[in-house]
Amino acid sequence: VDITITSGKLVYLDRGGFLLESIKDKVAIIGVGCTRFGENFEMTYGDMIVDAVFEAYEDACIDPKQIEAAYLSTAFPELQAAQGRSGMSLSEPLSLSHIPITRIGNYCASGSDAIRNASMAIASGLYDIILVVGVEKLRDLSPRESLVSQAINTGHPLITKGLTAPGIFALFANRYFYKYKVDRTCLAKVAVKNHFNGSLNPKSFLRNKIKEEDVLNAPFVADPLGLMDCTPITDGAAAVILTKRELARNFNKNFVLIKGTSLCVTGGNTLLFQKNNDFTGFQSTIEAARTAYEQAGIRNPKEEIDVAEVHDCFTITEILNYEDLLFCAKGDGWRMVHEGVTGLNGELPINPSGGLKTNGHPVGATGVRQIYEIVKQLQEKAGARQVKNARIGLTHTLGGPGGVAAVTILGIGK
Amino acid sequence: VDITITSGKLVYLDRGGFLLESIKDKVAIIGVGCTRFGENFEMTYGDMIVDAVFEAYEDACIDPKQIEAAYLSTAFPELQAAQGRSGMSLSEPLSLSHIPITRIGNYCASGSDAIRNASMAIASGLYDIILVVGVEKLRDLSPRESLVSQAINTGHPLITKGLTAPGIFALFANRYFYKYKVDRTCLAKVAVKNHFNGSLNPKSFLRNKIKEEDVLNAPFVADPLGLMDCTPITDGAAAVILTKRELARNFNKNFVLIKGTSLCVTGGNTLLFQKNNDFTGFQSTIEAARTAYEQAGIRNPKEEIDVAEVHDCFTITEILNYEDLLFCAKGDGWRMVHEGVTGLNGELPINPSGGLKTNGHPVGATGVRQIYEIVKQLQEKAGARQVKNARIGLTHTLGGPGGVAAVTILGIGK
Repeated sequence: VDITITSGKLVYLDRGGFLLESIKDKVAIIGVGCTRFGENFEMTYGDMIVDAVFEAYEDACIDPKQIEAAYLSTAFPELQAAQGRSGMSLSEPLSLSHIPITRIGNYCASGSDAIRNASMAIASGLYDIILVVGVEKLRDLSPRESLVSQAINTGHPLITKGLTAPGIFALFANRYFYKYKVDRTCLAKVAVKNHFNGSLNPKSFLRNKIKEEDVLNAPFVADPLGLMDCTPITDGAAAVILTKRELARNFNKNFVLIKGTSLCVTGGNTLLFQKNNDFTGFQSTIEAARTAYEQAGIRNPKEEIDVAEVHDCFTITEILNYEDLLFCAKGDGWRMVHEGVTGLNGELPINPSGGLKTNGHPVGATGVRQIYEIVKQLQEKAGARQVKNARIGLTHTLGGPGGVAAVTILGIGK
Repeated sequence: VDITITSGKLVYLDRGGFLLESIKDKVAIIGVGCTRFGENFEMTYGDMIVDAVFEAYEDACIDPKQIEAAYLSTAFPELQAAQGRSGMSLSEPLSLSHIPITRIGNYCASGSDAIRNASMAIASGLYDIILVVGVEKLRDLSPRESLVSQAINTGHPLITKGLTAPGIFALFANRYFYKYKVDRTCLAKVAVKNHFNGSLNPKSFLRNKIKEEDVLNAPFVADPLGLMDCTPITDGAAAVILTKRELARNFNKNFVLIKGTSLCVTGGNTLLFQKNNDFTGFQSTIEAARTAYEQAGIRNPKEEIDVAEVHDCFTITEILNYEDLLFCAKGDGWRMVHEGVTGLNGELPINPSGGLKTNGHPVGATGVRQIYEIVKQLQEKAGARQVKNARIGLTHTLGGPGGVAAVTILGIGK
């Protein structure tokens, strides 16, 4: 972009080394709730909201009347009879009237971005108690009405030739295999790990343990990605209640603090063809992580992060995320899963919930569900899938594909 | 809603009379830009963004590289080839890469809510310079693809019988006429006033002056609302650049301060049938105004507000807004326009831009365009439509219909 300012002179601020304020430790999570993710045919969009939010109310020991503002994350209202187009879709099922409700839709980062904006609203001092809800009904549609079908119907020359999400991430997998001389077994190990974790999570959609050969023998969706390398299509909702740190202890002595929350948007649909894309990582994740680590004061992510939920829309994505999030060196992501580092009892457990692999990816809900999981892990309330000694956790969403990414860092309150 | 907390006791905070912080005077507007609103067949969604934003860059004397975060307001991406579904739709035309871009869609309050969230982000201390863009392409569609057509195609029993936007607001007009013993002439006076103002606004779509008989003789859309009581369908984009008060003077000595910014969501689609709806006003506007006035320290709106842009989606709506915004007593709204109080040279000029009546209502853009207008008025840069001695201005959007409302109060910086 060339800019020509014709009147007046461009103004640059000399901040004199002045650092912007950080969000670190200003905002606390006092309650979380989550529906079972899956084929929720018996529940409407509103039913799922009620289910998740009332669990969060109870978790926070809070009266609904105390909610001062809310955020609703839904990415694709047009797939769910316009539900989620505005804050009204949250106020109606909850009878939450006369408060401000902002609705955010930002592809796969919608839920994370809703929490980020709610955190800034708390930090601004304007509200003390904010509810964030992520909800999406994707499974409850015929294939003809689905997002993929609609994308294909636009007639986009690349999408109609197969450049849907699996097609795009398959390009990354092939490039990764070529560059680092690995093969599909590293992907299979991701699927096996996440299915094992999901089997321990009562709210996960898929709860079957699988073997590597199950993944390797599954039919191809987009070579080298097979059916079991892909996230399933599900419905789901999750909720989080935030307050300022000073008030948190009144509600929940086991509260969790937000250490950092970032969003990075790198570009539009031509992203894949940008010069600096080497098809082995995502600049948006790298930048979002850098910002969140800076806010949280994290210098050595691999040592300091104890548990993470990352965006495993495909098995290859989880491996690329390890590298982009600086959990390991470039090209070493596949080793982390080969060596069991990211298993439930490993040094750095990743996706203890089962991740998108077993929960699916109801787009607006995912970022909020990830926060639910990390809060439960930090509170040592994660049941059979509890990881050990988790004090700092991270969530990561990636969408667009690759054009938007968000990272949130959470820590035990004190 | 009945809530049953089974574990633990509900916690209520005793804030001891502690007041929440206000946004007042913390956030400044240093630049604004706006496309011509109308049938922008020659401009894409992205072209309109570039047009509005580069005007704002120039107004603020700012380098695009200084933008630290952004907000994109688009209400109906599904009507514009998915453009506006995420922040990527802003990053691409502007080459604004690697910054956080939140996309907000909240029906007709989308643009106002984007500015509200950007204001909180500045007040939180996380960012110093934020760009807000509202954009929507509604005119550039065939009737079959239009929003109204799509609403009718859902098969909703009331919408298919005519309860689209004109049908709903016609109910309010009829009730108002019955209750206060007035007729269509008061509506015609609103249209005449706004067309006069629009004729002086080079960015307005409709620029023809009209007479009362033109309005009264126009074909009915939904009795008693005729064609000239309705906002036309247009395309448009507007942009605002915000910073913290302390930094504003560096960029623009003629900066404007945000005194208050509020959003109120009252309910969902059954709103019209709620017991307390008397069809002569909107609870959402009343509550949003109350909050914004409280933030801004305004006790007597009629005396203290010098100029306002209000949501005149239909002529009757403007009259109801006068009452809901406390510019006059209940039932006296029609008198304000009869007596010329709200004319360009009246005591309280309303919609000096021509309002939605002549600019149309590209949904995501409207709230931002209103801010553009009030900033120009407060800066005494409004040209032929300049009002006199304006120090405090207000913007108001209403959508849903009636389920969401937002009010922003602006004042001259010092």
